[in-house]
Amino acid sequence: MKIVALAGGVGGAKLAHGLAQVLPPEDLTVIVNTGDDFEHYGLYICPDLDTVCYTLAGLANPDTGWGRVDETWTVIENASLLGGPDWFRLGDKDLGTHLERTRRLKEGDSLSNITRDFCIAWGIKLTVLPMSDQPVRTMVETDEGELAFQEYFVNRRCEPKVKGFRFDNVDKAKPAPGAKEAIQTADAIVICPSNPWVSIDPILKVISLTPNPLPPGDVRRDKGIPIVAVSPIVGGQAVKGPAAKMYSELGIEPSAFAVAKHYAGLGNGFILDQIDSQLTKSVRGLNMQICVTNTLMKSHDDRKLLASDILDFIGEVV
Amino acid sequence: MKIVALAGGVGGAKLAHGLAQVLPPEDLTVIVNTGDDFEHYGLYICPDLDTVCYTLAGLANPDTGWGRVDETWTVIENASLLGGPDWFRLGDKDLGTHLERTRRLKEGDSLSNITRDFCIAWGIKLTVLPMSDQPVRTMVETDEGELAFQEYFVNRRCEPKVKGFRFDNVDKAKPAPGAKEAIQTADAIVICPSNPWVSIDPILKVISLTPNPLPPGDVRRDKGIPIVAVSPIVGGQAVKGPAAKMYSELGIEPSAFAVAKHYAGLGNGFILDQIDSQLTKSVRGLNMQICVTNTLMKSHDDRKLLASDILDFIGEVV
Repeated sequence: MKIVALAGGVGGAKLAHGLAQVLPPEDLTVIVNTGDDFEHYGLYICPDLDTVCYTLAGLANPDTGWGRVDETWTVIENASLLGGPDWFRLGDKDLGTHLERTRRLKEGDSLSNITRDFCIAWGIKLTVLPMSDQPVRTMVETDEGELAFQEYFVNRRCEPKVKGFRFDNVDKAKPAPGAKEAIQTADAIVICPSNPWVSIDPILKVISLTPNPLPPGDVRRDKGIPIVAVSPIVGGQAVKGPAAKMYSELGIEPSAFAVAKHYAGLGNGFILDQIDSQLTKSVRGLNMQICVTNTLMKSHDDRKLLASDILDFIGEVV
Repeated sequence: MKIVALAGGVGGAKLAHGLAQVLPPEDLTVIVNTGDDFEHYGLYICPDLDTVCYTLAGLANPDTGWGRVDETWTVIENASLLGGPDWFRLGDKDLGTHLERTRRLKEGDSLSNITRDFCIAWGIKLTVLPMSDQPVRTMVETDEGELAFQEYFVNRRCEPKVKGFRFDNVDKAKPAPGAKEAIQTADAIVICPSNPWVSIDPILKVISLTPNPLPPGDVRRDKGIPIVAVSPIVGGQAVKGPAAKMYSELGIEPSAFAVAKHYAGLGNGFILDQIDSQLTKSVRGLNMQICVTNTLMKSHDDRKLLASDILDFIGEVV
């Protein structure tokens, strides 16, 4: 079964890692949000892409979910002594990634080529794609004005109140080479438990995902393929990050149901955590089939179990 | 006695450090070559400026003369694992400097402002100036074509045969703010034992140093101020670096005399190492006064002793 997973940062990375444990690498493509990429200290930084790759490679910091394990902080400490900003924690191992990516981008190479080569170097056998080789910038409209995503997310710790989102350059960005093809040959698409507003929406816009992403002539086209989403909001709270806060500030009660509604019309399957089983009926009302399971991925085994449940569920989604 | 020192990398840094030990900080300005600055991994790197500052701040690696003491190499090792070039050894502490300098340059700040603030942060009280805020690029014309300086110097280990030098953008580069003023109020100029071709010549060209750098109306103008040079070639060999090799390849026998001839017409004082005392007469023939002393600066005390000898000599130069 060929799967395309759409992923943002930590939650997406964990589920991608789970899927990698239950699928042969040639059957899994992970398309990663690059809307929160930014330039800092002259370096091109891709937080979600790096979190996904570090997690898949077993290089991620298990405590934070982002950054590298056994990291040191010599560079940023020395830059900080000179007055440099330290609100975005750049570790020394992590900086090796940013330096080499920046070097190759400046030479004119594409982010997808670079990501492919980094995956090879890190021993990642499945395909990881940035959503696009063209920069897309997620801008957060807040009560304090429009903020670049990392400025809002890290520097301002999600404190300003959200009024909306804008994806700068999204109209000009093309899906990364291989993304459309992966979708068109996929047996199912998994929307990982990442932030719907700022992690998944940018990907959906760039790859123009429709409820039936198969090309004309594909024998499966009449039926469409399963598109199943995992809720990043469990028990009314975000597992990590500002998703619930964003829903509230946008006037929507944060819940797995709100997430399901976000994907209604696109997704035909939805994975609810056991805590939210009472929402089954409401989500079914959105014309989605339901799988209730444990989605919290606290351990490596949890990731694999959730991935396994999702594959079983995909077999049932009509 | 107000002194302006012109300096390249290691040799210049050592003498600047010696001068800093015998002069009050307000009486010493060091103007540093930036012709070998370059961009690497998207970062703006100033090898000579950093070597001078690290040396003055007591942060330099005492074994190499460049880079930082107690350095680690995590970033470059990780970039190298991804296929990144490691011919230019970027240490982690050193990278803190490059990141913050690059960040501020990208914000539109000037190299001289940045250098001033870095000096404050590192506890350097004297004035260190880059020769210019505009980039000048030393290009080495070789039998294998024209090479950017660091490409020739570090990556190719000075192996290609030198045919000449070109200083890209030197006509458009202005002396850094304060450089002209420091020269016009100086009681003497010291040309440090740096490479005449690639460390001192770029500075001389940018600051348009003349044998009499005083402005019209200055009471000292008739006489001119002492301009004294220390030979980086001792006993026919370069103390460090490719200076002797360059002289040979340009068809000039490498010697302290060749260096003196290089500065003839500009300098009126020359410091010879004891090893080269037999050259005293020949150099005098170039219309220069001579000081013979130990110039090798193997210890910290040597730096201070040489600086002290130079100040005494300056008092004698007419």
